[in-house]
Amino acid sequence: MREVGCPEEELFSFLSLSRQEDLGYQNILSSMCTPPHPVAARAHAMFLETNLGDPGLFPGTAALERLLVRRLGALMHLPEAGGYATSGGTESNIQAFRIAKKRKRTRSPNVVVPESGHFSFQKACDILGLEIRTVPLDAEFRMDVDAVDGLVDNNTIALVGVAGTTEYGVVDPITRLSEIALDREVFLHIDAAFGGMVVPFLDRPIPFDFRLPGVNSISIDPHKMGMSTIPAGCLLVRDPEYFSSLNVDTPYLTVKQEYTLAGTRPGASVAAAVAVLEYLGMDGMRAVVAGCMENARRLIEGMETLGYPRAVTPDVNVATFSCDRAPAGWRVSRTRAGDMRIICMPHVTRDVVEAFLGDMSDLDA
Amino acid sequence: MREVGCPEEELFSFLSLSRQEDLGYQNILSSMCTPPHPVAARAHAMFLETNLGDPGLFPGTAALERLLVRRLGALMHLPEAGGYATSGGTESNIQAFRIAKKRKRTRSPNVVVPESGHFSFQKACDILGLEIRTVPLDAEFRMDVDAVDGLVDNNTIALVGVAGTTEYGVVDPITRLSEIALDREVFLHIDAAFGGMVVPFLDRPIPFDFRLPGVNSISIDPHKMGMSTIPAGCLLVRDPEYFSSLNVDTPYLTVKQEYTLAGTRPGASVAAAVAVLEYLGMDGMRAVVAGCMENARRLIEGMETLGYPRAVTPDVNVATFSCDRAPAGWRVSRTRAGDMRIICMPHVTRDVVEAFLGDMSDLDA
Repeated sequence: MREVGCPEEELFSFLSLSRQEDLGYQNILSSMCTPPHPVAARAHAMFLETNLGDPGLFPGTAALERLLVRRLGALMHLPEAGGYATSGGTESNIQAFRIAKKRKRTRSPNVVVPESGHFSFQKACDILGLEIRTVPLDAEFRMDVDAVDGLVDNNTIALVGVAGTTEYGVVDPITRLSEIALDREVFLHIDAAFGGMVVPFLDRPIPFDFRLPGVNSISIDPHKMGMSTIPAGCLLVRDPEYFSSLNVDTPYLTVKQEYTLAGTRPGASVAAAVAVLEYLGMDGMRAVVAGCMENARRLIEGMETLGYPRAVTPDVNVATFSCDRAPAGWRVSRTRAGDMRIICMPHVTRDVVEAFLGDMSDLDA
Repeated sequence: MREVGCPEEELFSFLSLSRQEDLGYQNILSSMCTPPHPVAARAHAMFLETNLGDPGLFPGTAALERLLVRRLGALMHLPEAGGYATSGGTESNIQAFRIAKKRKRTRSPNVVVPESGHFSFQKACDILGLEIRTVPLDAEFRMDVDAVDGLVDNNTIALVGVAGTTEYGVVDPITRLSEIALDREVFLHIDAAFGGMVVPFLDRPIPFDFRLPGVNSISIDPHKMGMSTIPAGCLLVRDPEYFSSLNVDTPYLTVKQEYTLAGTRPGASVAAAVAVLEYLGMDGMRAVVAGCMENARRLIEGMETLGYPRAVTPDVNVATFSCDRAPAGWRVSRTRAGDMRIICMPHVTRDVVEAFLGDMSDLDA
């Protein structure tokens, strides 16, 4: 550390230069995050000093966390679902597996996860000492549910389905997965970190949530399509009682027990997540999602006109292409198979899509 | 969710009312958090949309994270220490144990933790499947190092020492613990989540950091005495190579591998942590810590004058008393043994201490 402090002006010149080295979102086509909605930023600032790790000191903020859980629970067709605000999808997935592991004690626990599962499942399995069994995908990158039954055994503590896969933006056949979960009596966790804030707002929603009786828990991230600030994830569970197995005693706090992964937890991003949901409502979210889906369709159509076929028709606003190049100045990403991948987040407006297509077209000129 | 969105004014009236239900920090004497320093709040707002989970998109913010690690490494007497910004002490403790577990494969791993260890160690052990062996404390609530040797065996993957215990604010005899760790070849993790930003700024710092050759990793939280925004923790390790065992492949990101617990991670609170360190420098932090320590001394003196003896003379700004009541309007906390516990954070100014002592004195009137 420097011996003597830095004057505020000089410090903020330095920080401002650092910030300028970051890419602007206007050229980022590869991220599942987006600049926070203005009401998220405003609410975040209002709750900046709050700590949900000690809810008795911040009962107003704690009530907002309960409201967030209630709103997302209702969106997932179970208003009385249990839940809490996590740091994001990874924590939600770890905690879901932790619950599943407590509910079925076995010597060599395994989990059955589609090949399209996010890499956070590998982290979760590494941390919790779980064997990961991978389910192959069908031609459209959805989990091949026919392969599931053969992978499940007496040591299987959890099944995973994905609603809005990270790479190809498809939704697994979760109705069938729910049947298998009930039949084989296995805990079913749905990773809807991305799709949870997309699928319910589509013209024809695909079933993936608590309406399916086999679904036990859902991960859903307001800091992705919920346009909240980071970190704002949410783990929802069918029965709030699930969390009791994770409790540790918490002396010297205003609560006696805690089941969250983190201790100190920001209230600001939770208030931000609530603000966006309340401000937009179902209608507003439908409009945002409709815009993103329309832009994804336009992008796919434009790319195909240029001779770059889609890898698949996605269920959510993730577009992928057989295309091994990209114009300078744009950040796209690649799937493991090498396809170009673009997420049509709210900041990827129609103008951005057209500008990108124009630059793609110039590549050939 | 509501069908139609809520007008912005109405929304912020509601949020403002929620915020007013929270307690103000001016009456909170029980928290290890404090309102963020004004430069932290300003930096946080500037970096609100950044995501350290995809550092290639935010190279300026990622450089700030490296600067934070370098500054805190230097403060811990190892400028070349590895590290990253965590969500707080719990994640840091989990990740330290994860590293230790990878470094020593054994069938029934255990960790040796003082009875004063934070409850996050129980979480970490539950998650990672570790047996927790508790070291008793001496009369001044420091770990009884004589008991450590008998608890360590071939299955011990890590020892823990605490620099600034949560309940009584004391520093374990870490010099001796370091010798034991070297002698028994066990990974030594230091939980300095609170004390890491206090002890180095004391007139007579107590040794606890990488200067002691047995220390392998340190947890230190800028969102506690570093006056940053939440979430801002940091895990430091003696050798950056330690992290390689935690790597998972991260397709579709701008980096190829990731060893952090979370995926998406806020850059805002990291920029805030850097801002405070740069703005205050060593001199400024010494002044803040000197003020907190002075207020703790005054509080202890005042309470003893009122007939409430201290439980122990603390090493950091945590004051504890034999006192089973408290005046209305103040939030104090209790240790497991029932002692009153007050943390003299920066917001607990001399005026606050005097006001509290005045109210304590009126209890008898």
